[in-house]
Amino acid sequence: MRIALDAMTSELGVDEAIHGLFDALAADPELTVLAVGLPAALEPLLSHGPSALRSRVELVAAPDVIGMDEEVAQVFKGKKETASVAVATRLLKDGKAQGAISPGNTGASVMSATLLLGRVPGVRRPAILTPLPTGNGYCGLLDAGGVVDARPEDLMQWAIMGSVYMEHVLHVQAPRVGLLSNGEEPTKGNAQTLGALPLLQGAPIRFIGNVEGRDLFNGHCDVAVADGFLGNVVLKTAEGISKMILAQLKEEYRRQGLLPKVGGLLSKPVFRAMLKRVSPDEFGGGPLLGVDGNFIITHGRANRVMIRNGLRVAAECARQDLTGRITHAFKAAA
Amino acid sequence: MRIALDAMTSELGVDEAIHGLFDALAADPELTVLAVGLPAALEPLLSHGPSALRSRVELVAAPDVIGMDEEVAQVFKGKKETASVAVATRLLKDGKAQGAISPGNTGASVMSATLLLGRVPGVRRPAILTPLPTGNGYCGLLDAGGVVDARPEDLMQWAIMGSVYMEHVLHVQAPRVGLLSNGEEPTKGNAQTLGALPLLQGAPIRFIGNVEGRDLFNGHCDVAVADGFLGNVVLKTAEGISKMILAQLKEEYRRQGLLPKVGGLLSKPVFRAMLKRVSPDEFGGGPLLGVDGNFIITHGRANRVMIRNGLRVAAECARQDLTGRITHAFKAAA
Repeated sequence: MRIALDAMTSELGVDEAIHGLFDALAADPELTVLAVGLPAALEPLLSHGPSALRSRVELVAAPDVIGMDEEVAQVFKGKKETASVAVATRLLKDGKAQGAISPGNTGASVMSATLLLGRVPGVRRPAILTPLPTGNGYCGLLDAGGVVDARPEDLMQWAIMGSVYMEHVLHVQAPRVGLLSNGEEPTKGNAQTLGALPLLQGAPIRFIGNVEGRDLFNGHCDVAVADGFLGNVVLKTAEGISKMILAQLKEEYRRQGLLPKVGGLLSKPVFRAMLKRVSPDEFGGGPLLGVDGNFIITHGRANRVMIRNGLRVAAECARQDLTGRITHAFKAAA
Repeated sequence: MRIALDAMTSELGVDEAIHGLFDALAADPELTVLAVGLPAALEPLLSHGPSALRSRVELVAAPDVIGMDEEVAQVFKGKKETASVAVATRLLKDGKAQGAISPGNTGASVMSATLLLGRVPGVRRPAILTPLPTGNGYCGLLDAGGVVDARPEDLMQWAIMGSVYMEHVLHVQAPRVGLLSNGEEPTKGNAQTLGALPLLQGAPIRFIGNVEGRDLFNGHCDVAVADGFLGNVVLKTAEGISKMILAQLKEEYRRQGLLPKVGGLLSKPVFRAMLKRVSPDEFGGGPLLGVDGNFIITHGRANRVMIRNGLRVAAECARQDLTGRITHAFKAAA
């Protein structure tokens, strides 16, 4: 099992990526990681890794990087042979890896994967699935990428791909798929969702109808489809209010007296466990579904935990032949 | 200062509304409340209220109620003389009250206010503003109602109304207004927000450009405009993840040992204060902006605290002549 890692582009730095890489190797004895990037940056870090694991890392040189703030449409063409994300994608394309992961500039990852791998036949717009924590599982929200002008048939295609992913990679039996809307009743929605509803009802999935914002976190559904505009606002809303609540909690501990402060100290293991459960690091990013290859995109500020989990998820996609299953689902639906 | 209260329609019951009513009277010596509803249901509860406050309650009989699950478009016409929400609205219309509040069926409230009060001249679609807690203030999100097919000019009108409300009723100086989108850059957005952007840039408000989901809770803006579809999903997403986080916290306290449990007990005042800060009860619902009268719509499950605060907000709208100010703003902008 060989997974290519764009090791250069986590905003938290190359060392964070390399730590995550070794954590992943330690957890999965079948895994080999192709670490893609500037040899001068990667070699020293790799040579300090645990000697028992180093034989399962291969350094693949890529002289260039696409930065977080670079305008992808302008720079990609000039860097498509040299940028770390493109080199990692090409390893996947050429069969030298069975999966790839990239943190960093999401636009660059999407462009690299879409242009170099191509799309699964029948898929109009690839979409990013982000797993949201429900407390005892995940709800896969897609598109969490940038498809702001989705058509009803795109939502239907994403529902099929999301369902395959949640079933075979996250091992949810018969995933329940919902259409994110402003009410459960089938009369609720905007032109886009009202148009998508009959298509979803006819799709080869376990469709449960419209779902609401709260259903993303209460275990009511396993997959939720929305266009990339709504998906983005939803993700950032969830992130924003979580941060606000935790900041208020900290602030109240600061304000109050000695006994509550002691309570806070004694509660530390509870907070730690709770944060672990609701933290996005644990699921290691989401797949770009609909491209012809197992491609995982993590958060730009990917830490060690997220990189490790991203590699784990990419390997699981490859083991379960995610791309093959999606290809098959689209053939069957066509 | 006379405010009409639809006392029948909180899902938590009439007694919760009456408790909230007396709390509001105790807090504001200038306030008189017109309690609207079935005399047989209200009289016994009112007669048990504090005797010093009872002289400032007037019972106004309304023989009918519109339930939470009733299809408003079908039932409103038949109940527009008799339903508690309609009778409360008419008191406002006829100048017998300077403000009105209604919990319960939001569709019924919107229809009653829009049909009976009419719109402020120039306003195309009234919108509900919901204040979201930012930790040390609020961000007013509108539309939090049901306008799913908003045009760019609707978003612009809501920005003006939201700005007037946050400045004069919530006393925020020179409120910063943002357009909710999937990125801060002016190139981000869908057809609707891209169309609204230049209109907002030209509006008589302090427009700060696109804002993201996280900016609703971090104090970055004081007003955020979005159509009612997005507004609804955002509100329910925020509610959903908050509940999930708090449930996980409880669950972890349950799982862990004695010391963390003691920590939880000692932390109770912290949790109580934190919840008070992030709770929607505290702001008592949001105004329906753009109708010709000060009309507050609370959550359907309005408790005593929310009713008290709703009455306080309605009185403040009346004192600040909210409707007059919005009328003036639209005259000036025309």
